[in-house]
Amino acid sequence: MALIVQKFGGTSVADVDRIRHVAQRVVDTQKAGNDVVVVVSAMAGETDRLVGLTRSFGAEANPREYDVVVSTGEQQTIGLLAMAIQELGVPARSFTGSQVRIHTDEAHARARIASIDTERIRKELARGWVVVVPGFQGIDSEGDITTLGRGGSDTSAVAVAAALGADVCEILTDVAGVFTSDPNVVPNARKLDRISYEEMLEMASLGAKVLQIRSVKFGKRYGIPIHVRSTFSTDEGTWVVPEDEIMESLVVSGVTYNRNEAKVTMFGVPDRPGVATQVFAPISEAGVVIDMIVQNVSTQGLTDITFTVPRGDLEKALPIVRGVADEIGAAGVTQDSSIAKVSVVGLGMRDHAGVAGQMFRALAEEGINIQMISTSEIKISVVIEEKYTELACRTLHDAFGLGLDELATAEP
Amino acid sequence: MALIVQKFGGTSVADVDRIRHVAQRVVDTQKAGNDVVVVVSAMAGETDRLVGLTRSFGAEANPREYDVVVSTGEQQTIGLLAMAIQELGVPARSFTGSQVRIHTDEAHARARIASIDTERIRKELARGWVVVVPGFQGIDSEGDITTLGRGGSDTSAVAVAAALGADVCEILTDVAGVFTSDPNVVPNARKLDRISYEEMLEMASLGAKVLQIRSVKFGKRYGIPIHVRSTFSTDEGTWVVPEDEIMESLVVSGVTYNRNEAKVTMFGVPDRPGVATQVFAPISEAGVVIDMIVQNVSTQGLTDITFTVPRGDLEKALPIVRGVADEIGAAGVTQDSSIAKVSVVGLGMRDHAGVAGQMFRALAEEGINIQMISTSEIKISVVIEEKYTELACRTLHDAFGLGLDELATAEP
Repeated sequence: MALIVQKFGGTSVADVDRIRHVAQRVVDTQKAGNDVVVVVSAMAGETDRLVGLTRSFGAEANPREYDVVVSTGEQQTIGLLAMAIQELGVPARSFTGSQVRIHTDEAHARARIASIDTERIRKELARGWVVVVPGFQGIDSEGDITTLGRGGSDTSAVAVAAALGADVCEILTDVAGVFTSDPNVVPNARKLDRISYEEMLEMASLGAKVLQIRSVKFGKRYGIPIHVRSTFSTDEGTWVVPEDEIMESLVVSGVTYNRNEAKVTMFGVPDRPGVATQVFAPISEAGVVIDMIVQNVSTQGLTDITFTVPRGDLEKALPIVRGVADEIGAAGVTQDSSIAKVSVVGLGMRDHAGVAGQMFRALAEEGINIQMISTSEIKISVVIEEKYTELACRTLHDAFGLGLDELATAEP
Repeated sequence: MALIVQKFGGTSVADVDRIRHVAQRVVDTQKAGNDVVVVVSAMAGETDRLVGLTRSFGAEANPREYDVVVSTGEQQTIGLLAMAIQELGVPARSFTGSQVRIHTDEAHARARIASIDTERIRKELARGWVVVVPGFQGIDSEGDITTLGRGGSDTSAVAVAAALGADVCEILTDVAGVFTSDPNVVPNARKLDRISYEEMLEMASLGAKVLQIRSVKFGKRYGIPIHVRSTFSTDEGTWVVPEDEIMESLVVSGVTYNRNEAKVTMFGVPDRPGVATQVFAPISEAGVVIDMIVQNVSTQGLTDITFTVPRGDLEKALPIVRGVADEIGAAGVTQDSSIAKVSVVGLGMRDHAGVAGQMFRALAEEGINIQMISTSEIKISVVIEEKYTELACRTLHDAFGLGLDELATAEP
């Protein structure tokens, strides 16, 4: 007998039939002898509808009221799902974020979970009831409704699992698990059986959308195994677990890509102490997040600084960058929106030398030029021309033996 | 400086533009030097949408979860309206039924308000804020969400006004006030300036839809003046007030009609003690509400019993009535769905003899036959052929001098 937290996303509860299907899934899990707590998102499209309504009234200026409105999406789903489960003859009860006291900080629309009172949930589980709670929301110290920001339901689920000391947090979604790469781009991408929290964090940061980053951090901090699997199949998905539970690490576990960045270069920059701060401080102050930064070796006292920003923020960043360039006497500024960041992630990199060299060689053989490089302990990212995105992913996927057949033999 | 509770119904907050209009109305009221608490319904259509979703999962069997789902409609509106008011530069804050502790009994989907904690509302008012709360909902002793049943927002508003000791509860709606009759049927119907709680209760029971009956009872019990007026105009509407504040009672204040009933006659009924119980107990047990009952004088030990039931329940009632008729040896059962109940209501009837005679004479002069009669202290109802409904209303409206010109002179 295990305590299982199951989280269903918006597409899994998109309509009456799907809610019924989810109810059956929950009932099957309980009848297999488990205690079940269900965390749900709003029905697909409902949060967008509610956010749209709030936009008419300057939602940004009133995040407190924004939260009152958008939190109703999940409240609808918890009630409907509890009804659907009861229709199948299993007692179920829904509780709002206020009722189960999901405490957060006061940062409306992007709150962080501080603690969860589990007393009420435990009482219902002890009676043999299924408990259904809303993702994405909580209450602050005033008792006001807060929301966690988009994708927050994953985080809610892992937080509930952590508070209850659950055996597993299942994230049920419309994909079968975490893949070695995007199957739409790399046809022979395969589902991973296991992946470490660290790799999952890198992959989520680099563009894989299967899990919300904060939920992985929670899982890692509290040691909650996360099982990402399909709502529409009972096949095993991908387990996200501590590193020491990965028997034999792959050199590279996944290949990700991100086409949402743009590159800015300031060239002929006088190379003196403090110049980086002069360049980047005003951009950050404007709320633009800088991702990669590369600075060339200085020649004749001048250097080039290249960095990437979200593509949607390019128009905001450029005038600031040009202003700084004038101010510090740089030679000029260029930009490029047609780029992609392609990354390889893998715990095994720590022990295997030469991964970077293997990556660069594989790309070079396909004639793909590397514009920028950035590395961490378990990932290597390169910026390339956007048009090579798919080719680069497929090339790297093959180069590191991630295709279906090769991987099957590499695992224990 | 007054404390005003303003209630806006679903059509008044049906879309973004109307919510903006309501916000302006609230701001104007506050800027005129008043403390304002706003009670709102769900946006028109939203409650129907939510109820429809719950029906897919057997809402009747799960009223607790039904309430969790349908209560989200009002929660959306309170957040949106609070935003809209703030956009106009006036501080506003929304609170859910849980936050302001609108305590109800445990009767989910048809709960009754028991008490309201006003501390939080008073604190915000003292700071100069507008407070926005949802109609139609509350919490039970477990902290579970309850709803009051359709139309419950009027009741919420008057209850909030009573709890706060407000100077007035304004019910803002899509009509200009309470009319002497339905203007769609009686073209010269006019808006009443004042009406007593008692008359309003009778008129609401008899088919006038402008105010929910329970809200009038609350107003009467706690002595809260209710001002029914248009959302879309600043003209005075109709004040519903204690009887002693009506300077000069009209003999008849209003003419109402109801076309939703059907008539059943059991004839040749052996007239012996207990026969009425034998007839009516099984009908009531089937959940059919009986309205009017008429029993003729017995001749030769036999009598006829005629009664009305909601038209939608006729098919359910008939087999029961036929069974009883067989059992007690009655001669037979007839039915008639083409009837209407037309009523006149007025405090003045108490002091004016001859109202009934005047009513029957007026109808007879138009050739309208009266099938059944029922009276109370301040109302007389007759059942007539349905096709005469409009004619009967106009005839009585004129007979009692309710037309625009006549009434204007009759008032103080």
